[in-house]
Amino acid sequence: MKVLIVGATGTLGKAVTAELGQRHDVIRAARSGADIALDIADTTSIRQAFERLGQVDAVVSTAGTVKFADFAEMQDADYRVGLDNKLMGQVNLVLIGREFVPDGGSFTLTTGILTHDPIRYGSSASMVNGALESFVKAAAIEIGRGQRINAVSPGMLVESVPNYGPYFPGHDPVPAAKAALGFTKSVDGLQTGQVFEIF
Amino acid sequence: MKVLIVGATGTLGKAVTAELGQRHDVIRAARSGADIALDIADTTSIRQAFERLGQVDAVVSTAGTVKFADFAEMQDADYRVGLDNKLMGQVNLVLIGREFVPDGGSFTLTTGILTHDPIRYGSSASMVNGALESFVKAAAIEIGRGQRINAVSPGMLVESVPNYGPYFPGHDPVPAAKAALGFTKSVDGLQTGQVFEIF
Ligand SMILES: NC(=O)c1ccc[n+]([C@@H]2O[C@H](COP(=O)([O-])OP(=O)(O)OC[C@H]3O[C@@H](n4cnc5c(N)ncnc54)[C@H](OP(=O)(O)O)[C@@H]3O)[C@@H](O)[C@H]2O)c1
Ligand SMILES: NC(=O)c1ccc[n+]([C@@H]2O[C@H](COP(=O)([O-])OP(=O)(O)OC[C@H]3O[C@@H](n4cnc5c(N)ncnc54)[C@H](OP(=O)(O)O)[C@@H]3O)[C@@H](O)[C@H]2O)c1
Repeated sequence: MKVLIVGATGTLGKAVTAELGQRHDVIRAARSGADIALDIADTTSIRQAFERLGQVDAVVSTAGTVKFADFAEMQDADYRVGLDNKLMGQVNLVLIGREFVPDGGSFTLTTGILTHDPIRYGSSASMVNGALESFVKAAAIEIGRGQRINAVSPGMLVESVPNYGPYFPGHDPVPAAKAALGFTKSVDGLQTGQVFEIF
Repeated sequence: MKVLIVGATGTLGKAVTAELGQRHDVIRAARSGADIALDIADTTSIRQAFERLGQVDAVVSTAGTVKFADFAEMQDADYRVGLDNKLMGQVNLVLIGREFVPDGGSFTLTTGILTHDPIRYGSSASMVNGALESFVKAAAIEIGRGQRINAVSPGMLVESVPNYGPYFPGHDPVPAAKAALGFTKSVDGLQTGQVFEIF
């Protein structure tokens, strides 16, 4: 399969690229430094990348930014960062990508453990993850043409402990290679409308 | 208690007003035709309403619009309707309202059954409801000052069957008066970070 991985150069994306690359023809995307340039926050950039690539059998996203800050400081504009980027950026990969994915192709988005297990500073991350998980369940029943859509929700990655560990007290870190298996389940399996929780 | 009910003139809001009005000093808000004018999609309007009202012990929202349409037709702008209105409109009631709510006061937002039980045309509603439910869980642990925040998730209301019935096949309609009890649980009880599902 031809598999587009958006965010392929990141901590999670590298592990997903290694995992899916064993069996598939992987195209790595990021804003820079990958096989193809694509900014999920810019619908024109998404469309241009798909037009350059043509048909892809599976679209995987491991990209998406949200603002982490004290709830007391969070204002409307702070939540918009995550809504514009991690939420609508990934959703727009589906809305635009569906034209370029054949019957039976798949979309796999990334959420995270904060949907149900919140932390200090994480109210935007939780909001965005919850939005993505319910979107995936709803889009799956309507998307048609046998296209499938799932999300993978990793726990904090082992590789991210040096950066995020202090913010996730009591969280049991998950190796990125283990989280990457959720993407295989989505891309190579047949399920749809699922959130594969890897934590 | 002094309880602000935003969306008080609507199908759900009228039932919540009747329920909470039995014990509380209720102030009804909507864009027009209520005790006070307030547009949740406009942060200036929210702030002006709170400045006029001063302290309120509980803020309840039964307002919020999303676009219902075939997933095949849904584009970025269509999802933004729900993000700007039902999602950030209700979130902004919390972000602005928290200054006007005393220690121990509460916020109660409205989601709906589509979070977990999607229907055709409902991908934006599901997205927004999922966002609100995870936001409520996350905000509750950080909000401080003993302020509480919950959501009520009603099933399709009996009173809405003439309008929405055909779009909710197999859904068991809930009387608005029963859904209103979820708001009492939130306002008069002590729980926080909960989604009271009434379906
Ligand atoms: N790390 C964790 O512990 C963990 C746990 C659970 C969930 N997650 C989620 O997994 C996702 C990735 O996390 P990560 O730690 O792997 O992040 P990361 O190391 O910062 O990698 C992010 C990747 O996405 C790309 N990217 C960033 N902004 C982009 C944009 N606007 N358009 C396209 N690509 C973009 C980056 O490349 P460029 O900067 O060159 O564009 C990079 O390839 C995030 O949504 C995060 O919330 C992470
Ligand atoms: N009805 C159901 O079966 C059902 C089931 C589950 C969940 N829900 C949810 O419950 C909420 C209310 O539904 P409903 O059926 O009661 O709706 P509705 O009858 O249309 O009432 C909406 C109420 O909100 C007010 N409103 C609308 N836009 C507003 C804005 N921008 N700012 C402030 N107030 C605004 C309306 O008054 P104005 O127009 O004058 O502003 C009215 O008071 C919605 O979020 C809906 O998704 C409904």
